[in-house]
Amino acid sequence: MDDRHVAPRPADPPTPTLIVRDTRVGGVPADIVIAGNRIAAIEPPDPERAIDAARTRVVDGRGTAALPGLMNAHTHSAMAMMRSYADDMPLMPWLREKIWPFEAHLTEDDVYWGTRLACVEMIRTGTTFFNDMYWFFHGTARATVDSGMRAVLSPAFIDLGDPERLRREAEATLRTLDEARAYPDRVAFAFGPHAIYTVSEAGLRWVAEQAAARGCLVNVHTAETAGEVDDCVRAHGLRPVAYLDRVGVLSERCLAIHAVHLDDADIALLAARGAHVVHNPVSNLKLASGGPMRYRDLRAAGVNVLVGTDGCASNNNLDLFEELKFAALMAKHATGDPTTLPADEALDLVTTHAARAFGIDAGALAPGKLADLILIDLGHVMLFPGHHLAADLVYSAHGRAVRTTICDGRVLMADGVIDDEAEIRAEVGARLARLTGR
Amino acid sequence: MDDRHVAPRPADPPTPTLIVRDTRVGGVPADIVIAGNRIAAIEPPDPERAIDAARTRVVDGRGTAALPGLMNAHTHSAMAMMRSYADDMPLMPWLREKIWPFEAHLTEDDVYWGTRLACVEMIRTGTTFFNDMYWFFHGTARATVDSGMRAVLSPAFIDLGDPERLRREAEATLRTLDEARAYPDRVAFAFGPHAIYTVSEAGLRWVAEQAAARGCLVNVHTAETAGEVDDCVRAHGLRPVAYLDRVGVLSERCLAIHAVHLDDADIALLAARGAHVVHNPVSNLKLASGGPMRYRDLRAAGVNVLVGTDGCASNNNLDLFEELKFAALMAKHATGDPTTLPADEALDLVTTHAARAFGIDAGALAPGKLADLILIDLGHVMLFPGHHLAADLVYSAHGRAVRTTICDGRVLMADGVIDDEAEIRAEVGARLARLTGR
Repeated sequence: MDDRHVAPRPADPPTPTLIVRDTRVGGVPADIVIAGNRIAAIEPPDPERAIDAARTRVVDGRGTAALPGLMNAHTHSAMAMMRSYADDMPLMPWLREKIWPFEAHLTEDDVYWGTRLACVEMIRTGTTFFNDMYWFFHGTARATVDSGMRAVLSPAFIDLGDPERLRREAEATLRTLDEARAYPDRVAFAFGPHAIYTVSEAGLRWVAEQAAARGCLVNVHTAETAGEVDDCVRAHGLRPVAYLDRVGVLSERCLAIHAVHLDDADIALLAARGAHVVHNPVSNLKLASGGPMRYRDLRAAGVNVLVGTDGCASNNNLDLFEELKFAALMAKHATGDPTTLPADEALDLVTTHAARAFGIDAGALAPGKLADLILIDLGHVMLFPGHHLAADLVYSAHGRAVRTTICDGRVLMADGVIDDEAEIRAEVGARLARLTGR
Repeated sequence: MDDRHVAPRPADPPTPTLIVRDTRVGGVPADIVIAGNRIAAIEPPDPERAIDAARTRVVDGRGTAALPGLMNAHTHSAMAMMRSYADDMPLMPWLREKIWPFEAHLTEDDVYWGTRLACVEMIRTGTTFFNDMYWFFHGTARATVDSGMRAVLSPAFIDLGDPERLRREAEATLRTLDEARAYPDRVAFAFGPHAIYTVSEAGLRWVAEQAAARGCLVNVHTAETAGEVDDCVRAHGLRPVAYLDRVGVLSERCLAIHAVHLDDADIALLAARGAHVVHNPVSNLKLASGGPMRYRDLRAAGVNVLVGTDGCASNNNLDLFEELKFAALMAKHATGDPTTLPADEALDLVTTHAARAFGIDAGALAPGKLADLILIDLGHVMLFPGHHLAADLVYSAHGRAVRTTICDGRVLMADGVIDDEAEIRAEVGARLARLTGR
């Protein structure tokens, strides 16, 4: 969180469309001036400032601190509908008896509304960006657009080793990529080969080539369980990370999701290729995926580590601040060293680190950056008495202290109110009655 | 959570002092009728009920579910003042440079106000009872009385092997025990020998004799770190649990706090003596105390396991629902089995299990039980869509969904409002300015 500062007003300022008045940036009182979708200036508070009320919305920032909006690096957002639908079960019965039958009946509109629900929760808890993988790309994309959030979205790519299915998946994926150009810049396409055990070697090679040619990101679940590693070694004579490298997937465009079961060579290879690792501590613990995650070793090797919540079916929430508590505490537990992954560094993972991985000019508060930011209610009892804001957010209050959320220069939540929340809940409720036969 | 039911009104009902109208108990719509400090009846909602407004307060329970108030089995509550004061540090510098110097300047009134602050947070997140160990017993006791909560309180007992200090501690402890009788029944005294490395064998034996003679509980930090176990074996030829047994502390009145480093013989001994184990997963992770906690083995042996948050200096909050997420997820991680410690069982640990350990007739909603209960806002987005309330509370919403908190028949928070919260914060803020020299 080193990039925040209070800078002088530029010589020829653009017309403000939004001003956050009298908040705090990096501990210093400031007005944040936003023009369009970018931060134009961060200045000392000016109560005398002339404001053209017709062109400029004013947000009262008194009693708040501004932070960059958080960036959730792994979600299956529509699964918010499945929160607490199935818990505390072994993996295969959980998938076979509960998750897959539920998903079998989903429509694109169900995914739209499920994602809208997820966006409400993310906006409420201070997240402005998410990196998603799910079915019905356009359902997720439309929901992202309508919610006002920023996202990288992957249609799940699975061929199960069937060449005909691969042919169809490839065709559908390129069509989706083409159609995705119609969405605003806030929505970007990424390839989403689900995992090495659901996508053939030919499928992975095809994805790697396409992603390289088109400059797209690739999301792939990697080394999530010990079984996956064993199977990969048996089938390919390589561990998952080395196998992904052999088929060309491992690069600075690759997001290796989970990456819990790594040996030293895996870590060196991830570092050498510039691949990013997305840590999902709650999901890994809840599904008993094993580990521990080798956060300190990854960091020492120079791997860019991000944090995600995974879907609500394995978490069961999308509060990324809370996820950071799990990440920080598990890193200390794994190393036996309480200085591992301190609170400020944890916030970096979901701001500057994520911005770098996704190539998004956000994750910091500074003139010129995208106006993706949140206002923290400094009066929240779980931040009180306020010795250290980062620790208060990561270890105590989490997303409950978020008062206002701004993304791409637009206010998505003001003083805890999201305009269309009631409508979204009513629609999700009606759809669930059909999906679960209640 | 098996004890909740909707029972017929008794033949000769006492005069209600409080009625929660139209909530849900165990999934069934119900009015909860409270007379004095106990639940008089749980009945089908009766909109025609005649109510004497002068004698009976009515709480609107529509849109809520009622649960027993949670019972936090280990706190140093006044340390709420120290939330985020020192984090991510090695244990000894953390204690020597930050915690102990801060505590050295505390007065009884500081402890009173720090505990009031902790009570605000506990009430807000659905806790009605806490089991505390700290300095200035009367500061904590007065704060408990004034906050309306229920508590077992231990003055920290430390002799550092000094016979003269032991004599003074013993004298002061018995005086405190005697003085504690002046408080309402909501406040009970327990002995608090801090740990085997801060209390001499003579001190532990004295506590064990006194506790047995007076029927008091004993709180003792036990087997928190590997170093404690090693030192104990070196000094006494026994591991901590066996040593506590030899000096007479281990009994059904003993709360072994932490108990992370246990072997099979330790677990068998805890079970044989009927001692209770208090699990503090966040504190153990944050301080990198080691482990893992052997929850499943303790349960299999029949040991009564409770859950506590520890103090805010090592957590950094007092949200016991959130602590249950850590407990449940760590139990799954430790066993590699996602069915370990499911959400409903987790809630049992902080209700029925705790009620049994502390001998308090609460922890369940039924006629005759103490009226310690909370109302959950079923409309909270992090409980939505509402497939399973226990999982939603433990894994998703935590204490943020608590709308109303009732203890001993009195409403401590109504619709999110605690009457004296502003005054408490102002007073704590002023005291901190002195304590930290800001």
